[in-house]
Amino acid sequence: MKNNHRKGWMEGDIFQFLITSLKGISQVILIENALTGVIILIAITSTSFLLGVVSLLSSIIGTFIGKIGGADEAKIKQGLFGYNSVLTGIALTLYMSGPYHWIIALFGAAVTAILTASMMHTMKYLELPVLTTPFIILTWFMLLVTYRLKVINLTKELVPQDLSNWKLNIEGDINWIEGTFSGIGQIFFLDNTLSGIILFIAVFLAGWRLGLFAVVGNAVALLVSYWLGAEHLLIYEGLYGYNAILAMIAVGSVYNDNKQWVQPLLTGILAAILTVPLTASVATWLLPYGLPALTMPFVLSTLIILGARKVLPRL
Amino acid sequence: MKNNHRKGWMEGDIFQFLITSLKGISQVILIENALTGVIILIAITSTSFLLGVVSLLSSIIGTFIGKIGGADEAKIKQGLFGYNSVLTGIALTLYMSGPYHWIIALFGAAVTAILTASMMHTMKYLELPVLTTPFIILTWFMLLVTYRLKVINLTKELVPQDLSNWKLNIEGDINWIEGTFSGIGQIFFLDNTLSGIILFIAVFLAGWRLGLFAVVGNAVALLVSYWLGAEHLLIYEGLYGYNAILAMIAVGSVYNDNKQWVQPLLTGILAAILTVPLTASVATWLLPYGLPALTMPFVLSTLIILGARKVLPRL
Amino acid sequence: MKNNHRKGWMEGDIFQFLITSLKGISQVILIENALTGVIILIAITSTSFLLGVVSLLSSIIGTFIGKIGGADEAKIKQGLFGYNSVLTGIALTLYMSGPYHWIIALFGAAVTAILTASMMHTMKYLELPVLTTPFIILTWFMLLVTYRLKVINLTKELVPQDLSNWKLNIEGDINWIEGTFSGIGQIFFLDNTLSGIILFIAVFLAGWRLGLFAVVGNAVALLVSYWLGAEHLLIYEGLYGYNAILAMIAVGSVYNDNKQWVQPLLTGILAAILTVPLTASVATWLLPYGLPALTMPFVLSTLIILGARKVLPRL
Repeated sequence: MKNNHRKGWMEGDIFQFLITSLKGISQVILIENALTGVIILIAITSTSFLLGVVSLLSSIIGTFIGKIGGADEAKIKQGLFGYNSVLTGIALTLYMSGPYHWIIALFGAAVTAILTASMMHTMKYLELPVLTTPFIILTWFMLLVTYRLKVINLTKELVPQDLSNWKLNIEGDINWIEGTFSGIGQIFFLDNTLSGIILFIAVFLAGWRLGLFAVVGNAVALLVSYWLGAEHLLIYEGLYGYNAILAMIAVGSVYNDNKQWVQPLLTGILAAILTVPLTASVATWLLPYGLPALTMPFVLSTLIILGARKVLPRL
Repeated sequence: MKNNHRKGWMEGDIFQFLITSLKGISQVILIENALTGVIILIAITSTSFLLGVVSLLSSIIGTFIGKIGGADEAKIKQGLFGYNSVLTGIALTLYMSGPYHWIIALFGAAVTAILTASMMHTMKYLELPVLTTPFIILTWFMLLVTYRLKVINLTKELVPQDLSNWKLNIEGDINWIEGTFSGIGQIFFLDNTLSGIILFIAVFLAGWRLGLFAVVGNAVALLVSYWLGAEHLLIYEGLYGYNAILAMIAVGSVYNDNKQWVQPLLTGILAAILTVPLTASVATWLLPYGLPALTMPFVLSTLIILGARKVLPRL
Repeated sequence: MKNNHRKGWMEGDIFQFLITSLKGISQVILIENALTGVIILIAITSTSFLLGVVSLLSSIIGTFIGKIGGADEAKIKQGLFGYNSVLTGIALTLYMSGPYHWIIALFGAAVTAILTASMMHTMKYLELPVLTTPFIILTWFMLLVTYRLKVINLTKELVPQDLSNWKLNIEGDINWIEGTFSGIGQIFFLDNTLSGIILFIAVFLAGWRLGLFAVVGNAVALLVSYWLGAEHLLIYEGLYGYNAILAMIAVGSVYNDNKQWVQPLLTGILAAILTVPLTASVATWLLPYGLPALTMPFVLSTLIILGARKVLPRL
């Protein structure tokens, strides 16, 4: 009897743990909602089965490290030890080649959880969130590793380039519909329309306010990047959109105590606009290393606004 | 009647706001003095009318953002939300070309004020001033943007270069008199003798102690950079001087509680000396990106000394 | 009489100061033990007399600056103002050429002590140690200076390279015995077997636990770097080992309150493993500047683990 009871408790425990891991996936878009996590997982898996498996495993690994490391239970349950690991897992799987690339990706997901803890400690003093910084830093470091260790290799996509040889060519057609859905998809490195549609559903399901902010952030990025003369191919692929969506949700909705409309919308739009030049400059800065900008423009824009708000309370 | 009274109050308000904006200009050289601000504005305008207008507008924009953002009134009144915006405004106007460059410059000045607020929050914990860090970071980022967005372009001056192709050539004559006045002029990106003379007047007017520190800092930089074999052209143009002047004023006078002579002078000279190798290394570090060092050597030297003083109180 | 007494006191003072300076040398490997310092000095001097003299002088200079600056006596006595200066002194002597290189090295050692104080202030808020960060930052900056100031030059060894031209070639034999002793030697930039043996003696003398952690850290690095396909020449020269040794000692022994075996050993090994990819990526990152990785992989690995431990107490 007691054994059964014990077993029942363990099943509940495992179920709870899985829920937390799904929240870890939804936290990538700053949402704590297991169902949103499931739908995101469907969007990822519909593009690539391997990526889906890696995403779920990475979130499990990150959450598990939070648990055995003895982190604050409340933070673990919000999925805060999962989302950076999810992103690292996906990014390393995509950008690395070679027979062991997914093992390296899962190892990276594990180290990301440790780095997340470390950065949480650092940012605590500034009363600012770590956002996706651990994922970005770790992924950049791991991609640079490939130049020196034979066991892993970069994909052909990422090529270091001299800034002095760089020529800007913005030519090309933009399919605005596809560009719209690629924007949200690129948060998870997906650039097909179907995944984009599913992801929008996932966000709206967590709250129509969040959904609306995502839509507006995306629209702002498309317009501003086009108007400033960004490369059309990148706009089309959603590479100017995903940071704006995240920044708009973070600044306008998640970290905004004020639940009225005007001020959150305006500050959110400001954050979304800032991601456009930030995307351009981070990409330029990384050019000699051939590294992708990842979500750094989102992190910079959001931290600037959230930090400024401590000094400019009406922002 | 009431209306008139109200109008009178508003005029006073606008006057007060203008005074604050002028202080914003003087704060570039760590001085809170509206008259010094006016004279600096004359020095800038005598070189370029556009730069003068941009400087004043940038300070107004920065101060205005501080005000509508709801920042601490005391800090706003000291001009602390103006000086970084002034420098960004000038730098972007000078380094960018294209029809919209001054609009971009004023937009940059606005964002600089937000970044200043954000960095004030960060540095508060370290009990250290932000100095000109917001201006430097924002200007570097905006200059990198030009490689990716068609609407703005860099001037031909800023060319990325491979460090492996770099050859040091220090040849060239130095006109020591002109070099002296270019040093202080370069704080505002001016390299003519007249502007330099006016700027020295502006500093001495705010206090002969400040003036003396500026003169000594400049002399130290000229001698040390020449003795260590820096490029003569750069010494001549004052590019080794302006950081030393700022560091000497900051460390020796503004952030030094001890108003005696020996210790402030010695620490100030140390700070000024440090800016010389720092100018050399920051310039080398930025070479692959073709970015200017701006006032980064001043910021690094000053923060090192001010930070060290918290642990080494007799420094 | 009084004079004699006074003289006696001064002799004692000088003796105490020398002991502290020797501790400054032993603190490079996170050990506070004057005898260990003496043996390390023997290891260095047996390789190069000049390096031995520079090491001792650098520690004396660093400690002296702590004293006249008025730092906390307890920290000075632990040798905490010496070790970064020692490393800077050695590194600049080795990497620079030209008639004044050792003077520049000693000047660098002095500035390192000031930078150390500044970083102590910064890290105090995070409750994390500065480790060898001041040495690394200062040495990188000083090496970049050589491109712009004629008075000092880099050795031919350090050559900036385009990442796009980089080809990984791991070929070459490894002498595992020599590789083992080079690993610990490289902490002090020594790569001969004799110095390595003497250094192991120095560590074991300070405690067999410390010695064991050093041995394990070294072994982990050799195996992991070989298994991941690092360049054999670098493994042979100990360039994958020294960071692992330091990280293992720091994380497993020095900053671990728990004096049992299993947990410290496991976390230490994790820290040692992390230094291997970190060495690879830091080296890649610095390639365009031709700068050496120094002990940055150790610092990053250690700070990540120590920081994470504040949030994950069971790590």
